[in-house]
Amino acid sequence: MDKLQTLYYEFIPTGEAKMKIDPAKTALLVVDMQNQFISRDGLDAQVAREKGMFDKWESFYDRIDNVAIPNNKKLLDFFRANQLEVTFGRIACHHKDGRDRSPVQRRPGWNNILLPIGDPGAEMVDELKPLEDEIVVNKTTDSVLSGTNYEFLLRNMGIETVVCTGVVTDQCVASTVRSLADAGFEVILVEDACAAATKELHDAEIMIMNQIYCQVMSTDETIQFISEEIEQRSVVQK
Amino acid sequence: MDKLQTLYYEFIPTGEAKMKIDPAKTALLVVDMQNQFISRDGLDAQVAREKGMFDKWESFYDRIDNVAIPNNKKLLDFFRANQLEVTFGRIACHHKDGRDRSPVQRRPGWNNILLPIGDPGAEMVDELKPLEDEIVVNKTTDSVLSGTNYEFLLRNMGIETVVCTGVVTDQCVASTVRSLADAGFEVILVEDACAAATKELHDAEIMIMNQIYCQVMSTDETIQFISEEIEQRSVVQK
Amino acid sequence: MDKLQTLYYEFIPTGEAKMKIDPAKTALLVVDMQNQFISRDGLDAQVAREKGMFDKWESFYDRIDNVAIPNNKKLLDFFRANQLEVTFGRIACHHKDGRDRSPVQRRPGWNNILLPIGDPGAEMVDELKPLEDEIVVNKTTDSVLSGTNYEFLLRNMGIETVVCTGVVTDQCVASTVRSLADAGFEVILVEDACAAATKELHDAEIMIMNQIYCQVMSTDETIQFISEEIEQRSVVQK
Amino acid sequence: MDKLQTLYYEFIPTGEAKMKIDPAKTALLVVDMQNQFISRDGLDAQVAREKGMFDKWESFYDRIDNVAIPNNKKLLDFFRANQLEVTFGRIACHHKDGRDRSPVQRRPGWNNILLPIGDPGAEMVDELKPLEDEIVVNKTTDSVLSGTNYEFLLRNMGIETVVCTGVVTDQCVASTVRSLADAGFEVILVEDACAAATKELHDAEIMIMNQIYCQVMSTDETIQFISEEIEQRSVVQK
Repeated sequence: MDKLQTLYYEFIPTGEAKMKIDPAKTALLVVDMQNQFISRDGLDAQVAREKGMFDKWESFYDRIDNVAIPNNKKLLDFFRANQLEVTFGRIACHHKDGRDRSPVQRRPGWNNILLPIGDPGAEMVDELKPLEDEIVVNKTTDSVLSGTNYEFLLRNMGIETVVCTGVVTDQCVASTVRSLADAGFEVILVEDACAAATKELHDAEIMIMNQIYCQVMSTDETIQFISEEIEQRSVVQK
Repeated sequence: MDKLQTLYYEFIPTGEAKMKIDPAKTALLVVDMQNQFISRDGLDAQVAREKGMFDKWESFYDRIDNVAIPNNKKLLDFFRANQLEVTFGRIACHHKDGRDRSPVQRRPGWNNILLPIGDPGAEMVDELKPLEDEIVVNKTTDSVLSGTNYEFLLRNMGIETVVCTGVVTDQCVASTVRSLADAGFEVILVEDACAAATKELHDAEIMIMNQIYCQVMSTDETIQFISEEIEQRSVVQK
Repeated sequence: MDKLQTLYYEFIPTGEAKMKIDPAKTALLVVDMQNQFISRDGLDAQVAREKGMFDKWESFYDRIDNVAIPNNKKLLDFFRANQLEVTFGRIACHHKDGRDRSPVQRRPGWNNILLPIGDPGAEMVDELKPLEDEIVVNKTTDSVLSGTNYEFLLRNMGIETVVCTGVVTDQCVASTVRSLADAGFEVILVEDACAAATKELHDAEIMIMNQIYCQVMSTDETIQFISEEIEQRSVVQK
Repeated sequence: MDKLQTLYYEFIPTGEAKMKIDPAKTALLVVDMQNQFISRDGLDAQVAREKGMFDKWESFYDRIDNVAIPNNKKLLDFFRANQLEVTFGRIACHHKDGRDRSPVQRRPGWNNILLPIGDPGAEMVDELKPLEDEIVVNKTTDSVLSGTNYEFLLRNMGIETVVCTGVVTDQCVASTVRSLADAGFEVILVEDACAAATKELHDAEIMIMNQIYCQVMSTDETIQFISEEIEQRSVVQK
């Protein structure tokens, strides 16, 4: 990918310092790729249509269908084929009336979401369905780590690096990446497995987070990078 | 201020829903306004000079001196005059060798910071010195809430709303605002009491966070808003 | 109940200070009343029989059947009838191989537990089955608050007081009560809805925790106490 | 030491499974050995005298002076001489009026403590004064981990085992040991470097916690155990 670099990193170049990862200590985290938010017949798309605003969102749904979902699928296939840890974060509350939701998703506005466990809108889209033994963390916050057991599960499993994807780049994905970095994890943010309402919002937040909180890579770069590590380790073992 | 609004909030207008606050449950939080980061003779400015890059940072230091410090001072004066809670977050570690630092501030790059408690670079700039009884939280992360006792102190004091200022807008300030929102607090982000390396980074993150994680206001708007609440309550009491 | 009082509370008598609760902000928390641990045909009982040690555990299972289960049922009926919040904590991990378990339940010894979600041993006993909309928190720790979203859910729902029951008194129940108190909640520990391996262990920990971390009450006292509060409030409302 | 064993561990013997530690990843944690609580002229002792109850507490202060302080000193000397990590937890709040305290230390009763940072009663007793670079964590809870940055500091420093001492055994020490175990740390509880109001309370909680949450050892056993590990490692290195 083209180098995404803020003034902070012109100032202090990181040089050739290359990230190192242990695939056995690496987890994929797919954030909020749920029917309500990314399906063309999900609730958000319906509301946009009713309000006559769907044309403004068309490019979002195009990116979801043509870029984000296929790339997430590619990553899921790769992680599963190599027996690497696969995890999901999603927005879902326990009670039908949503009284257990965090205030941040209860106030008026875009982030006001009432999506109880069991509601079809809360499910991941069909292409990205979790397998039976894969961890799915429910949250009513933006960061997958806020008020959940996700960080604890990662530590118990010995995970050190998280490969993060999902929607929307500048909100739940960004808050999750920042929390992961603050909690001491290395993060790879897979740029073309994410999406935001507009390209500008997506690009702005990607630029801000790159290098300081995560390494931004494409899906293919991510798979190649981890494959090389797997290869190297299997050579060493022999 | 001009309305900062992303597509998300065109989609679902918040209407006239006005934020409500109880001044007695409101705290000011000044983030990272420390000598090392914002003084013209601090370590960061020195390094920029040595690297011949200070001209790129000139506008940052201008904004700090002419806008951010005066506005933070105005807010401190207002909060102290009205006996409202004043708190500070700062980057500082316990051990001289920094072994207690979070990995996110120990890796190579801009965020690699070794600033032990007691180092003059760790102190807030003179204009914004904490008074003896004001809380200062040390962190080695970006968010003031990550791995600290800050959230717990807020809850114990019954704080519900946090007025947030400081540097840099797109990194420590943004991570703090997002954490506060996820933890259930209402947040006012005082735009002209913050600064980032460039105006573009500052504007981009302010736009992204407004409405969803915080209400972006100017210093004067913030003071007027809280003053009106104080006035109203004192009228009601009489 | 007879006064349970340590030397600490002889020293500083709490006088007539009576606990106050708001029933609408009160939750029942049933801890670990799961088949594996308390059923006479659960795994623990089977192992005890195989080792020829069941006679030493007989009094535990008698208390479970004759005291703890009936009293938990009584409390569940009371909370449900009054539309008060009902919650459960249980030991259960995500992965079949238990790799997501906390180290404290993975080391050799009594606390080494491999009980994946879906295993019949992980279910609450039939008499105390959660209803569909009731919150069940999975943990692989002793305290229901350690590494879980339980505290966050309580805060989001506005809960201030927790009525705690379950097994075993001196381990998971005690660690939960201590965490709840440290997190700022008021706790009622329902003595005759709990059980431990021996009466001595049960009595010792109950004595240690009473007054400082919780108010120890019987099932009937608890129900009467909350009923009076409900009654008073409905009178005031009229 | 004599074997302390509850019925739980008769049931599932841990056999010869010996704890393993890496001294470089081991920290000493001294809990609440502060003037107010353990000095014969501290506030607690004064109040006991005023109430004519000091005779009931005489054995506590004898144990503090003759057993607990000397043994903590021995451990401090050993850890410092071997450059191992030394940490302290203490009860202290920020604000003089205590408004930042946790509810658990603000309610009427024994645990109601108002001890601001800077108050002489908040200092560790002279024999056990922290050195300049040693970490001291302030808390207004019983567990050193509740609402503090202690767990985060331990993780950042790579600590895996905590050697715990202090007062009082059945309250702050016990809550700390339980939290440490739940957070995934190995714990050595140094029995003769702790004290409680009565021998019965001390013995009861020690018995309850041994094996499941910690290994209970004497001061001499602890020093010998760690010394052997240091010796072995230095042999291996040569």
